[in-house]
Amino acid sequence: MTTYKKDLRPGGLRALGHEIIFEADTPAGKAFDVILIISIMLSVLVVMADSVHSIQVQYGKALYVLEWVFTVLFTVEYVLRLICVGKPLRYAGSFFGIVDLLAILPTYLSVFIPGSHYLTVIRVLRLLRVFRVLKLAQYVGEANVLMGALASSRRKITVFLFAVAAMVVILGSAMYVIEGEKNGFVSIPASIYWAVVTLTTVGYGDISPKTAPGQALAALVMILGYAIIAVPTGIVSAELVKGPEQKKISTQACPQCSKEGHDPDAEYCKYCGAPL
Amino acid sequence: MTTYKKDLRPGGLRALGHEIIFEADTPAGKAFDVILIISIMLSVLVVMADSVHSIQVQYGKALYVLEWVFTVLFTVEYVLRLICVGKPLRYAGSFFGIVDLLAILPTYLSVFIPGSHYLTVIRVLRLLRVFRVLKLAQYVGEANVLMGALASSRRKITVFLFAVAAMVVILGSAMYVIEGEKNGFVSIPASIYWAVVTLTTVGYGDISPKTAPGQALAALVMILGYAIIAVPTGIVSAELVKGPEQKKISTQACPQCSKEGHDPDAEYCKYCGAPL
Amino acid sequence: MTTYKKDLRPGGLRALGHEIIFEADTPAGKAFDVILIISIMLSVLVVMADSVHSIQVQYGKALYVLEWVFTVLFTVEYVLRLICVGKPLRYAGSFFGIVDLLAILPTYLSVFIPGSHYLTVIRVLRLLRVFRVLKLAQYVGEANVLMGALASSRRKITVFLFAVAAMVVILGSAMYVIEGEKNGFVSIPASIYWAVVTLTTVGYGDISPKTAPGQALAALVMILGYAIIAVPTGIVSAELVKGPEQKKISTQACPQCSKEGHDPDAEYCKYCGAPL
Amino acid sequence: MTTYKKDLRPGGLRALGHEIIFEADTPAGKAFDVILIISIMLSVLVVMADSVHSIQVQYGKALYVLEWVFTVLFTVEYVLRLICVGKPLRYAGSFFGIVDLLAILPTYLSVFIPGSHYLTVIRVLRLLRVFRVLKLAQYVGEANVLMGALASSRRKITVFLFAVAAMVVILGSAMYVIEGEKNGFVSIPASIYWAVVTLTTVGYGDISPKTAPGQALAALVMILGYAIIAVPTGIVSAELVKGPEQKKISTQACPQCSKEGHDPDAEYCKYCGAPL
Repeated sequence: MTTYKKDLRPGGLRALGHEIIFEADTPAGKAFDVILIISIMLSVLVVMADSVHSIQVQYGKALYVLEWVFTVLFTVEYVLRLICVGKPLRYAGSFFGIVDLLAILPTYLSVFIPGSHYLTVIRVLRLLRVFRVLKLAQYVGEANVLMGALASSRRKITVFLFAVAAMVVILGSAMYVIEGEKNGFVSIPASIYWAVVTLTTVGYGDISPKTAPGQALAALVMILGYAIIAVPTGIVSAELVKGPEQKKISTQACPQCSKEGHDPDAEYCKYCGAPL
Repeated sequence: MTTYKKDLRPGGLRALGHEIIFEADTPAGKAFDVILIISIMLSVLVVMADSVHSIQVQYGKALYVLEWVFTVLFTVEYVLRLICVGKPLRYAGSFFGIVDLLAILPTYLSVFIPGSHYLTVIRVLRLLRVFRVLKLAQYVGEANVLMGALASSRRKITVFLFAVAAMVVILGSAMYVIEGEKNGFVSIPASIYWAVVTLTTVGYGDISPKTAPGQALAALVMILGYAIIAVPTGIVSAELVKGPEQKKISTQACPQCSKEGHDPDAEYCKYCGAPL
Repeated sequence: MTTYKKDLRPGGLRALGHEIIFEADTPAGKAFDVILIISIMLSVLVVMADSVHSIQVQYGKALYVLEWVFTVLFTVEYVLRLICVGKPLRYAGSFFGIVDLLAILPTYLSVFIPGSHYLTVIRVLRLLRVFRVLKLAQYVGEANVLMGALASSRRKITVFLFAVAAMVVILGSAMYVIEGEKNGFVSIPASIYWAVVTLTTVGYGDISPKTAPGQALAALVMILGYAIIAVPTGIVSAELVKGPEQKKISTQACPQCSKEGHDPDAEYCKYCGAPL
Repeated sequence: MTTYKKDLRPGGLRALGHEIIFEADTPAGKAFDVILIISIMLSVLVVMADSVHSIQVQYGKALYVLEWVFTVLFTVEYVLRLICVGKPLRYAGSFFGIVDLLAILPTYLSVFIPGSHYLTVIRVLRLLRVFRVLKLAQYVGEANVLMGALASSRRKITVFLFAVAAMVVILGSAMYVIEGEKNGFVSIPASIYWAVVTLTTVGYGDISPKTAPGQALAALVMILGYAIIAVPTGIVSAELVKGPEQKKISTQACPQCSKEGHDPDAEYCKYCGAPL
């Protein structure tokens, strides 16, 4: 990292901005976050409403204006975040930094590519901040337990997904040979799609076997899918049973790098060493 | 609470009523509950039968009369419960109090809004009392273990449901952009409905992707849904494995506040202090 | 029980019959069981083949004859079992005794009620004996562990099924009111059927919501069904994790009452006290 | 085994071949495996592309040539493997030996039976080698834990599958009798297929009950399927919770018998005793 700490004197304008925008411990910071969350939800609803034909016909113009208003607001907020944080590049590269950017880009993009503004619904991910606002440290703790269980079983899950992928490729191809194009299995990729639909027990029925051997193989795939769901379930269950005791986690974000997840008694950021 | 204890002298009419209506330890109380349960089941069957067209044409009038008879009976019972219980407001505000009220309201409402009487099937919840009648203290205990496991994992489940909600919004919107209205994804809300149908592995097939990229994303959603079901399952399994030993629980209800769940050796209500 | 022990002297005809028909420890007993299992499988295949239209047209007569041959054979076997066992009534009332009877009745019944002979497929349950023949004491042990886990969680499962039943009745009725007959929800029972199809994540799609509020409620039902499957899974997982150590179990059946499940070192039947 | 160790002097051509083809510890061995994996993925993509009608029309010839090129390459590789390994018969009979053979046979077979070349997708199983190449010893360890859990619960799973098989036969036949041919249940095998589709909660909807008793039985089957999925899940969860600690495993393969799974500190093959 070549970015150095900016001047973050207590009382300085930038320190104040950081307190309001990034933290939720002061009344101003909390108010900012509550307004932000309401804005995000409204902007997502605007995008959804815009996609419904009957609403679009009647209120299309108003929704169009509203969407630009929200996008400009979020752009201003994004710029302010970059200014107020100690290490802007680190924030820009963090999960929330990327989400914040992706949440405004589609609207600008829609000037060139019509329809792409629907992708602004990614703003919904910004709502994850809700856990911070509501002082829901316990929820953050629980989420961390779940993430921890998933993380420590990621290799088992990778092996499992690899096995599933190999299975759907082979079973899908076999069905393509057995059933053929006349029964809806028009190509191997389409048959693999069918195998995924069947193995995961979704079962749309848009493609379904018609011949006796095809139905027999399909029945086998179903029972296989029904049985192997036990594997990821067992993995996560086992992790959670063994699971570590939960740590209490502070809602404070580092003023330098804006990373979270500090212990309640932490006085320095454990990622960049800046004082909290 | 501004309601004071009513006079509940042993031998008084109200005490007798409480014993019969609220408890299941005496022969009269048991008989009352058995008759009540049979009435509830019959009244639900009447409402169901009334909704079947061929039956309605032939026996419509008789069913109409029967429904009013049951509703009047249950109304009388509700009023008696209010009179006999020590703290009527507390009963009226409890789970069973609300269910008892909701079980009679729809019929009266149907005078103004035709069709609303079908909602009386909520009476089926009153059958939960069956556990008390049959002296099924152990079942109540088991139910409490399950509720306890769900309660102590409610934060994990909230986090999980929040993640699922965010996923279906984003994936649904992406499918709306990819597949578009011509393939049945008529709006973002409809596409989110599709995402829920797919992620939960229900898979109606009323909306299904037609294009290759759409099918690829759908396959991803399915595998995601197939894998993440491991999370709630793992949460509840872990809770139940850790689970506390079961407590034996009495079937007695407090004569003052009608709350249940007292220990077998309890002599006073643990909620209002009245002698049991 | 008013049935007394019959004479089962070693060397007697009846004792020999018992050894051959009920046990699998001697060569003759094993041969008998192997032939029996092959006969059962063939007879089930005959019934299945008889139901396929193209086969029925061509080989209908032969299949008809074969079915009667198998039925007569199994009838003779059933009578021999009654003769050879020490306590015929106890055998007749046991699980296998009832299955053995149900496996022959439908064919005789089909003389009066055409089509009922298809129910002879219940013979497939007789194949459970295969575990005994193959000296699969370990499988019997594992099956007992599973049955034990299910048995000790039967109350939790009852509570769960009761909750599910209440849910599908209420949700089905609500959908009947919301969607109505014009969208396929023709009656409350049909809507309850839809609720079961959806809650269990089967999702045929033969009935599916068309209106926006209906789809919203359906989405809720799906997420509910997706989440609560965690409950039975957690129950059984917890039971199996706690699960008792497996006992070795003998394949010997009591010559008096034909009950199984005796310990390897047992010298007397633990159900009727007869020497093994 | 009547095959004796071949001369595998260090520096010999065959020893060098073994090092390159079978191992992934030297740069040459790693490069070989990387090229092999890319070739396998390309060849599978070629077969898939060949099955898509629009691609086949345009690039059919090129794809045909490519497929033969890959097949010849893999044939050469297979022969080299047979030459370089110490015990060719043991390799040919091992899992990877059979997969390697099955991965080239279908193309040759397609000269006689058109269409059979699609079965070459079984090549995808060769990708399991990817774990070795990427030095993913930990993944191999995790995979072993999963396999171990499945292996030690194989008897429980067999019992479970047997019970499921008996259930679908009986329930399918019952539905055939109840619904009959006019509602799509054209034969007992077709009805058993329906029972599998329903019990596993796949639910295509290509066959679905139309009569009231049929829908009632179907609802029962669904709830059954919904509940008993708890059984395999519980079995695997319990195994994984109890699960043994993971062993670290080397990626080295034996130069004599090409078996893997040796401990990191092993100096001799634990299967044939040859020095590693």
